[in-house]
Amino acid sequence: MSPTETLHFEELAVGDTFETGGRTVTRAEIIAFADRYDPQPFHVDAEAVEDSVFDELVASGLHTMALANRLATDDFYARTSVMGGTGIEEANFLAPVRAGDTLSVCVEIVEKRPSASKPDRGLVTVEQTVSNQDEETVLTLRITSFFGRRSASEE
Amino acid sequence: MSPTETLHFEELAVGDTFETGGRTVTRAEIIAFADRYDPQPFHVDAEAVEDSVFDELVASGLHTMALANRLATDDFYARTSVMGGTGIEEANFLAPVRAGDTLSVCVEIVEKRPSASKPDRGLVTVEQTVSNQDEETVLTLRITSFFGRRSASEE
Repeated sequence: MSPTETLHFEELAVGDTFETGGRTVTRAEIIAFADRYDPQPFHVDAEAVEDSVFDELVASGLHTMALANRLATDDFYARTSVMGGTGIEEANFLAPVRAGDTLSVCVEIVEKRPSASKPDRGLVTVEQTVSNQDEETVLTLRITSFFGRRSASEE
Repeated sequence: MSPTETLHFEELAVGDTFETGGRTVTRAEIIAFADRYDPQPFHVDAEAVEDSVFDELVASGLHTMALANRLATDDFYARTSVMGGTGIEEANFLAPVRAGDTLSVCVEIVEKRPSASKPDRGLVTVEQTVSNQDEETVLTLRITSFFGRRSASEE
């Protein structure tokens, strides 16, 4: 990819949207992630689910965030001058994610501002809307990252 | 563990704190997580770091959140009647996490309220303050979950 094809701070406009491809979540991956990072019975143990508020094994919310981030990285961040994240404003777990679900993400630019102290970068906030194969929204997320400015990279 | 030892909604008081044990992050784990969920060059490629704003390989912010969640689960959530998370109010990536860093978490109860519609549970918001071995705060995070009420489990 030539430098001119990378989307810098200047080219990201509030209201722009980027649709990612889809990814199907497997039962093995739900259990592997949760076993390592979120070992609640309802994420790792099919029998324990019966004693929970869920009707079957559900993915950790952090796992859903991680899967969404991978999709957003492949189809949005990798095309940009992103330099790193500063934080997540909010993440809302709206519906369970189950084995066999296929997730995709709509990334929308919702806010941008130049860095007050560093002229080579700006802050861009995106909203990620994560949906399953039934077009049900399972997660919404706002995250802010630094993006390099074109003027800086052309110097 | 007997039912009376599980901390229910009623026993979680605003201001209560829970300190977790520590966990050292390895370089292999930083790369494995990022390779799967956050494949930015500065998370997976030691040479690409030279072209980034970081001085060496840093963990994905999502990885730091996941590691913190594991510590908080082992030393807080597993002792409680937690039923699942509703969302993250904010997460602030304040300092890089590097291979060899040892993370620990202070979990503080910052807000609680009964569920308006479901008498068997209540909502509790905790703040997680994640520190490294130098007592530098690397991440702060507010997350809200449902916790079962004692009255419900005793019925």
